[in-house]
Amino acid sequence: MASEMLVNHQEKAYALLKADADKILKLIKVQMDNLTMPQCPLYEEVLDTQMYGLSREIDFAVRLGLVDEAEGKSLLESLERELSALHEASLRK
Amino acid sequence: MASEMLVNHQEKAYALLKADADKILKLIKVQMDNLTMPQCPLYEEVLDTQMYGLSREIDFAVRLGLVDEAEGKSLLESLERELSALHEASLRK
Repeated sequence: MASEMLVNHQEKAYALLKADADKILKLIKVQMDNLTMPQCPLYEEVLDTQMYGLSREIDFAVRLGLVDEAEGKSLLESLERELSALHEASLRK
Repeated sequence: MASEMLVNHQEKAYALLKADADKILKLIKVQMDNLTMPQCPLYEEVLDTQMYGLSREIDFAVRLGLVDEAEGKSLLESLERELSALHEASLRK
């Protein structure tokens, strides 16, 4: 029972972080579809702020022992890869 | 046993958030003791970034069900009150 609850919290923590990462990706996609240039300083700032917020959430979940450090790092890195693929695609347009 | 583990996570979550709030307060105190003016834009920016990071952590803990929404709000508000007291004290110097 105790380990079930722990698993629930771990799963929920990871699901929340994944959802937040997806939200950032969607936000950036919407910006690109609306032709806001990635060279725009405001775009950079919004992205930096969002990435910083997510990294603070991940760090918090790791410190709480709900998410593995490696798992948190890989979530952030995979978001960074997806964002940079989007960015490159927009430059090729 | 299950509820004990839940209480542990709740206590740990709150303790981590409180420690992060204290860290921001200490950072600002150090800046003021070293005579960096609160009118300095960089000071404002550091403070905004730190407050944003903390609010994202609190929001995450609330969504996880580890911290009460009211409790989280009150933690942030009490930090804001302490910071504004510090700020006023520095202006009266």
